[in-house]
Amino acid sequence: MPSRIVCFGEVLLRLGAPGRQMLLQSPAFEVHVGGAEANVAVSLAHFGHEAAQVGVLPDNPLGAAAAGELRRHGVDTRALRSRPGRMGLYFLVPGAIHRPSEVLYDRAGSAFAVAEPSDYDWPSLLAGADWLHLSGVTPALGQRAADAAIAAATAARAAGVKVSFDGNYRTKLWDAWKGDAPGLLRRIIDNADILFADHRDIAVVLGKEFAQADSESRVDAAAAAAFEAFPRLGRLATTLRTQHSVDHHALSARMLSRDGQTHQTGSHEISPIVDRIGAGDSFAAGVLHGLISGQSDEDALRFGLAASCLKHSLPGDFNLLGVEDVRAFVKQGRFDVRR
Amino acid sequence: MPSRIVCFGEVLLRLGAPGRQMLLQSPAFEVHVGGAEANVAVSLAHFGHEAAQVGVLPDNPLGAAAAGELRRHGVDTRALRSRPGRMGLYFLVPGAIHRPSEVLYDRAGSAFAVAEPSDYDWPSLLAGADWLHLSGVTPALGQRAADAAIAAATAARAAGVKVSFDGNYRTKLWDAWKGDAPGLLRRIIDNADILFADHRDIAVVLGKEFAQADSESRVDAAAAAAFEAFPRLGRLATTLRTQHSVDHHALSARMLSRDGQTHQTGSHEISPIVDRIGAGDSFAAGVLHGLISGQSDEDALRFGLAASCLKHSLPGDFNLLGVEDVRAFVKQGRFDVRR
Amino acid sequence: MPSRIVCFGEVLLRLGAPGRQMLLQSPAFEVHVGGAEANVAVSLAHFGHEAAQVGVLPDNPLGAAAAGELRRHGVDTRALRSRPGRMGLYFLVPGAIHRPSEVLYDRAGSAFAVAEPSDYDWPSLLAGADWLHLSGVTPALGQRAADAAIAAATAARAAGVKVSFDGNYRTKLWDAWKGDAPGLLRRIIDNADILFADHRDIAVVLGKEFAQADSESRVDAAAAAAFEAFPRLGRLATTLRTQHSVDHHALSARMLSRDGQTHQTGSHEISPIVDRIGAGDSFAAGVLHGLISGQSDEDALRFGLAASCLKHSLPGDFNLLGVEDVRAFVKQGRFDVRR
Amino acid sequence: MPSRIVCFGEVLLRLGAPGRQMLLQSPAFEVHVGGAEANVAVSLAHFGHEAAQVGVLPDNPLGAAAAGELRRHGVDTRALRSRPGRMGLYFLVPGAIHRPSEVLYDRAGSAFAVAEPSDYDWPSLLAGADWLHLSGVTPALGQRAADAAIAAATAARAAGVKVSFDGNYRTKLWDAWKGDAPGLLRRIIDNADILFADHRDIAVVLGKEFAQADSESRVDAAAAAAFEAFPRLGRLATTLRTQHSVDHHALSARMLSRDGQTHQTGSHEISPIVDRIGAGDSFAAGVLHGLISGQSDEDALRFGLAASCLKHSLPGDFNLLGVEDVRAFVKQGRFDVRR
Amino acid sequence: MPSRIVCFGEVLLRLGAPGRQMLLQSPAFEVHVGGAEANVAVSLAHFGHEAAQVGVLPDNPLGAAAAGELRRHGVDTRALRSRPGRMGLYFLVPGAIHRPSEVLYDRAGSAFAVAEPSDYDWPSLLAGADWLHLSGVTPALGQRAADAAIAAATAARAAGVKVSFDGNYRTKLWDAWKGDAPGLLRRIIDNADILFADHRDIAVVLGKEFAQADSESRVDAAAAAAFEAFPRLGRLATTLRTQHSVDHHALSARMLSRDGQTHQTGSHEISPIVDRIGAGDSFAAGVLHGLISGQSDEDALRFGLAASCLKHSLPGDFNLLGVEDVRAFVKQGRFDVRR
Amino acid sequence: MPSRIVCFGEVLLRLGAPGRQMLLQSPAFEVHVGGAEANVAVSLAHFGHEAAQVGVLPDNPLGAAAAGELRRHGVDTRALRSRPGRMGLYFLVPGAIHRPSEVLYDRAGSAFAVAEPSDYDWPSLLAGADWLHLSGVTPALGQRAADAAIAAATAARAAGVKVSFDGNYRTKLWDAWKGDAPGLLRRIIDNADILFADHRDIAVVLGKEFAQADSESRVDAAAAAAFEAFPRLGRLATTLRTQHSVDHHALSARMLSRDGQTHQTGSHEISPIVDRIGAGDSFAAGVLHGLISGQSDEDALRFGLAASCLKHSLPGDFNLLGVEDVRAFVKQGRFDVRR
Repeated sequence: MPSRIVCFGEVLLRLGAPGRQMLLQSPAFEVHVGGAEANVAVSLAHFGHEAAQVGVLPDNPLGAAAAGELRRHGVDTRALRSRPGRMGLYFLVPGAIHRPSEVLYDRAGSAFAVAEPSDYDWPSLLAGADWLHLSGVTPALGQRAADAAIAAATAARAAGVKVSFDGNYRTKLWDAWKGDAPGLLRRIIDNADILFADHRDIAVVLGKEFAQADSESRVDAAAAAAFEAFPRLGRLATTLRTQHSVDHHALSARMLSRDGQTHQTGSHEISPIVDRIGAGDSFAAGVLHGLISGQSDEDALRFGLAASCLKHSLPGDFNLLGVEDVRAFVKQGRFDVRR
Repeated sequence: MPSRIVCFGEVLLRLGAPGRQMLLQSPAFEVHVGGAEANVAVSLAHFGHEAAQVGVLPDNPLGAAAAGELRRHGVDTRALRSRPGRMGLYFLVPGAIHRPSEVLYDRAGSAFAVAEPSDYDWPSLLAGADWLHLSGVTPALGQRAADAAIAAATAARAAGVKVSFDGNYRTKLWDAWKGDAPGLLRRIIDNADILFADHRDIAVVLGKEFAQADSESRVDAAAAAAFEAFPRLGRLATTLRTQHSVDHHALSARMLSRDGQTHQTGSHEISPIVDRIGAGDSFAAGVLHGLISGQSDEDALRFGLAASCLKHSLPGDFNLLGVEDVRAFVKQGRFDVRR
Repeated sequence: MPSRIVCFGEVLLRLGAPGRQMLLQSPAFEVHVGGAEANVAVSLAHFGHEAAQVGVLPDNPLGAAAAGELRRHGVDTRALRSRPGRMGLYFLVPGAIHRPSEVLYDRAGSAFAVAEPSDYDWPSLLAGADWLHLSGVTPALGQRAADAAIAAATAARAAGVKVSFDGNYRTKLWDAWKGDAPGLLRRIIDNADILFADHRDIAVVLGKEFAQADSESRVDAAAAAAFEAFPRLGRLATTLRTQHSVDHHALSARMLSRDGQTHQTGSHEISPIVDRIGAGDSFAAGVLHGLISGQSDEDALRFGLAASCLKHSLPGDFNLLGVEDVRAFVKQGRFDVRR
Repeated sequence: MPSRIVCFGEVLLRLGAPGRQMLLQSPAFEVHVGGAEANVAVSLAHFGHEAAQVGVLPDNPLGAAAAGELRRHGVDTRALRSRPGRMGLYFLVPGAIHRPSEVLYDRAGSAFAVAEPSDYDWPSLLAGADWLHLSGVTPALGQRAADAAIAAATAARAAGVKVSFDGNYRTKLWDAWKGDAPGLLRRIIDNADILFADHRDIAVVLGKEFAQADSESRVDAAAAAAFEAFPRLGRLATTLRTQHSVDHHALSARMLSRDGQTHQTGSHEISPIVDRIGAGDSFAAGVLHGLISGQSDEDALRFGLAASCLKHSLPGDFNLLGVEDVRAFVKQGRFDVRR
Repeated sequence: MPSRIVCFGEVLLRLGAPGRQMLLQSPAFEVHVGGAEANVAVSLAHFGHEAAQVGVLPDNPLGAAAAGELRRHGVDTRALRSRPGRMGLYFLVPGAIHRPSEVLYDRAGSAFAVAEPSDYDWPSLLAGADWLHLSGVTPALGQRAADAAIAAATAARAAGVKVSFDGNYRTKLWDAWKGDAPGLLRRIIDNADILFADHRDIAVVLGKEFAQADSESRVDAAAAAAFEAFPRLGRLATTLRTQHSVDHHALSARMLSRDGQTHQTGSHEISPIVDRIGAGDSFAAGVLHGLISGQSDEDALRFGLAASCLKHSLPGDFNLLGVEDVRAFVKQGRFDVRR
Repeated sequence: MPSRIVCFGEVLLRLGAPGRQMLLQSPAFEVHVGGAEANVAVSLAHFGHEAAQVGVLPDNPLGAAAAGELRRHGVDTRALRSRPGRMGLYFLVPGAIHRPSEVLYDRAGSAFAVAEPSDYDWPSLLAGADWLHLSGVTPALGQRAADAAIAAATAARAAGVKVSFDGNYRTKLWDAWKGDAPGLLRRIIDNADILFADHRDIAVVLGKEFAQADSESRVDAAAAAAFEAFPRLGRLATTLRTQHSVDHHALSARMLSRDGQTHQTGSHEISPIVDRIGAGDSFAAGVLHGLISGQSDEDALRFGLAASCLKHSLPGDFNLLGVEDVRAFVKQGRFDVRR
């Protein structure tokens, strides 16, 4: 039986240069709809769940188009509100080889960013939900968005809705309004059942450094600190990414739980990468699917990693693959044409 | 000998849906660089003049690309400044038949809009200039931009640089910040030698209605009122546009001067329109070219009208045609392939 | 309060040559989702109604994508079923000037065409519906589809759901299986409250000729015959199309009712046509919207005509415009850029 | 039974700006294969004839691709030779409204232009042919090409192969090498059975002016002079083109024969023009088809005119329509979608 | 001296999603013409042979376009017949990294599939031929196609035309009509001189398992079984493909002959793959070219492998490279720009 | 303080097949502006220098567009002259995997190639310059261009402007006019301060072979010979390129100076290559930037290598990256998305 997951966050338009070009090297943009939480919603919808997006979009054709794109992928958009304001945008310069991709945010003053916390009637929005998914991008957008995220997490906790939180720490966004990242993030994570975060996210939140020699140890130390700081937190999961070049990464995943279990997957070589944006959101969606559908932690972690790897093969922010596609990779990894 | 014309205003990116589609009907935008005053600068550069753009662009790849596009068309961009802020955008839904084109502005908070008037050292910026060209879009962007435009016009007047002003009244922009359009516009027009405006622009500025039966009479009445209100104003010119459908307009032009001359051209059928954006700016550039290069008022008006008509045949905001192209249409209007 | 309209029919992919080319003149197809009844559903959804599509799509990525496209435009797709079979396709050669557009159907053996009538549980599918919309394309697809359409119309009549039927007579489809068009169509129309049809449709159904000198008289005679033959039929509406060239049509509309009223609109010149496909479906959706929302017959007819005219300005099979867009044209017809 | 027509001339690549843009306004070219005589060959092949192209192409991938494109359309390319040299090119700026299209030739030094007349073994090349088609573009390319064209026409005459010649006078090409246009053209036309030419072509060839008031009289006077000057010439045919704008022409056709018959068609409005290039070649191919297939002069002329009109609806240099498509327009001119 | 090779099979259109997208992720298809046997014909034509395609295409613009595409690449299409029916299609989802490409066949009811065996007059079709090439796709399409393939092979054997057969076992196609794959394939292979097949193909045909530890041993065992079962079979050749990821394969080749010779090439790394479709057909064409042109078995095998490797670098189903291109790779493998 | 570098050479249009296709596999060209010396000018302009292009372009829209493109990227184009003649072109077949990219030059008879040496007033053109950059492509174009390059180098030497020369030996170009490459190149290099060349370039110039076992030794021997032959030459720099496949190269760099210093960088793996054209020019620009801005030889070499590596990630001939982008790679090489 499908679960209902409510995702709260900003839906954005990505305007990307085509074909590894610089921005406006030729006079066109390829457009994708995205947003950290919407990416999770779309992936969960493709996994067969009832995923709903909560948020505010501008009352103009761009907002309508973005909502339509979510609907196209099976997301319940009935709770999205139209308000005055502009559409949140980001421009993407797709990188290659040794030239990193660059994201240029243009989301200040968006309808989402200027929405009032009182615009959200959380008890009603969460009615019937099994999970609430949030990410650290939302509080980074400003005080109003941070307050709304805290309200959402608190309401979920009160209503018995489980809370999933993806760290997604974005320095530039926090710096732009000099928000109190640690304080605000702690108020959200305090309600979280599962946290998608690496040691850098935890370092920001707890004001500690994790300087262990290898990344696994840093994650483990960060997880231990998180479990201590957040007594309701059950699990912490993260991918571990090695970057050989812009086009070639290797990815593994690690999940720890309060009860002391640690699961670590093997590593997959990902090359040549088609589109890396949204890979973290795909991981979160994959792990959530695994947990929701009753997989063991180990299987859920492997499912999440496979989903994340597969996302790199798809243009756009969304992971459009279904459960069978992900399972096929988990099971065997066959790579010839399927006819 | 070419003249030097300084154009002051915001440079924008147009993001348009391809091929008469609705916004995001397919996931791509065609991008053009534009802006009322930049359009004039580009056209004057193609007419062989020394045209310089003054303004502020964001210190990011979009701003750099926009400046590059002006440079590509021969505009002197050395006075453009890079400042923090976002790039001014507008989204264009290209219309057809009975469905009007729509412009969705997204320029709030742009680097240009938030620039300080003190950012512009007008005596230096106007050194060596013969003309300053401004339009009513700039003061409509907010108090800072309005102040800058007034400062520019005043400095030009003081320095003996002639001032050209294009009304370009945009209700939505003024309404967004509840600016005192009449008061601010009057302070600019007070310095203008030539005004591109129709009776609606004058009505706003002077708070009068011009309800004559035909459009020529309304223009004449508005011009008379303008000459009375602005003692330094020498000429008023405007196109008269009849709209049979979105794709089929007819265009004539009218110019009046303080000394009582009135010139009226014949009308050209324009069908099917390729791109109507920037046609008014092309008219202004054409008339300015005519006057600057010593044509009679009548010839300058016909040149301006021809330039405006020809703009409708070109995708994008800019008129890319040269003096010979415009003259060929003024003289004869031959329409078969030139081999 | 929005009404619920159930549309039953095949959802198709249109594969069209780009830019007025012949098929495969260059190696690409532009793809649109369409289908006579789905076009009505999409338009009604954009008019704010609760429009649901009923039918069968293949259980493959093409079927899923087609359903997603309907959902994107706000259509309720929960009743669409996935079944083995192929996706119905049509290839479009876009015409120009004196060269007519051509449709090449490739829908034999589609999942819709081979669906069993028993696949549709009409009482359940029609629960809560105000209207059922059908068209003559469905029975033309074969005996199974014809039986399903008859069952739908009959069930609607039984359940007090009003029935709208659009003639859409397609000779080639009927000829392909030598179906008894008159007999089958009569069984559907027998249940119809409103019929969108011209004299040619009625001639087929009733086996009569309507050879009056002018098209208005032919429609009137056909309507009279229809009202006589189908005692439950309340209204007959049609557009009257004059074709000056492939790119230039003129369109008016006529509606007659059983109580003897006749409404005739003025004529609109439509030039240059962007995409004529779906214009009839837009007319039906517009008239239905008018009637459903309580407009007078005259206003509903004018609304339907305006919707149909506006469709010609949009690429693809769907009319994506909303009530305000249509009303703006009905009221005034202003054709300059809206800023 | 199909006839065999040998077409001799240069095959070119057209590099055109997309979508009514100026050259390199955006960084792409749309490519078409063309050439006055190849256009005739392609059209005749689509009309069901055995059409062969004779000429020289560069021994590089561009030459191979051009030959392949002719073959794709059914032209016999076995007699095309590969030789060192470059590919003949032309750049097309597609015009619109009042801005004429422009052709920028870049064919100097092409493999065709530098081919030796001795490269062509005319008796062998003409074996089995019913007609040889040439145009005035070939001798305009230089002395070698002119000599080859004269040799071809002379050989055809000697072998009893009928000769068709299309004037196609191109001032720029003749001026570039200061060739003796009248002298060279006369030596070709001396062998022609049918001449596609208007009064301007004849004026060049005979050094006379035709200054009659209307175009029909000018054609008639030119034809009379041509029949007198060229005793073997049987027919002269031409289109008469009225240009309302770049997008809207009207076209009729006129044919005169040595025995004193004059045929004049009605006029067709052509709007909006998709691609005017090759319309004259389509006329020639249409008239030739008519004559070859035993139509009366009047019918052949109407067929040629219809073919030429229809060409305006097709992107590229070629008329891709078949006999039935042309006949459908001649007979009735129906303009709605064919389903 | 070129040989004449007759290829018999269905010509298909490939409709592929652009740029690694999912089907209809954006609304466009890239179109290629293909088909296992047509791919061989095109490659052999580019190698300088007289390659003819035999088969049936629908009597519509798609069929005509497909034939034109073959002609463009030098294939003799005079024996292709036009018949009622639909065009065989396949949809391609291009994979990447860990996401396999997927082929969605849509060829049921195609003009080829419903053609009668009696439509083919084999003695006439094979007149003058040196080789007949067939593949296992054709009998998989249904009884009629299987009968035609058997008739072709038998007629070739009778006429002294050598027979080449490529296994190309497609489970989905055979399953769709529950055809007797082993029985039908045996009747074709019985006439084959050369068989392109791996151990899986032979396993199907002979109903045996080949479970040797390494792929070379499996091929050897299968070849031995095939030589025993088919006394006229002279050679068996296959590629051996290792799949590191969707974008990175390694390819070697192995050929065995009845007289006991075994040839094995080295392995080439192929990364990143541009288009893997048609690589097997390119191998067959390359080996056939080698054998036909008198190369040793070892050289023919290396030529075939090189041709297959190179195909991976070309978009579309066809290998468009010529003998010199393939030789350049066989000889040296230099990878910098050739200027 | 920025330096002024004058680059002298031909500006070309690249017409490339899109997406790894063969030329005209689909009917489109992607267009880029390039040219060995212009590439250097563009890169230096992006590095913040005052880079000026000297040369001749055709007096047509293509020449104007090419100049505009240089201007767009900040190059001073005021010294470019418009003259009769054609635009120099090259066609690019983009390779992949084992299929090398191919350049098909089409620059014979270009306005640059036919320009008179007297067209260049070198003292004036070099006034204020710090460096003159030339390459071996220019003298390869014919005697006139060779004479101009020699005159430029001589004038620079006389005026105290440093001279940079990039070998760029192109056999096909020299062979086409049988020019005396060694003699002409020596007269240029005689004036050079820095030479970008490998052992093959030196071998041509000095008529010696360098057959040492490894490439470093060959470069060292060639450098020694060059320092001996050209007493004013201060430095020789080159990249060392290992080609694993068309898509995967490894690149290091080596620079030697007259005073006996040798610097060798480490090697970077470059995979998958987006566009290799212009990588050598980017190296030259990078090294020049380093030297001009006072870096040590070692740092300049590493900067040049980084610039060259990064160029492989950008479509087109130009390196559009700035100093900070290059430094980021030199310093650390981080490859994840920058947000």
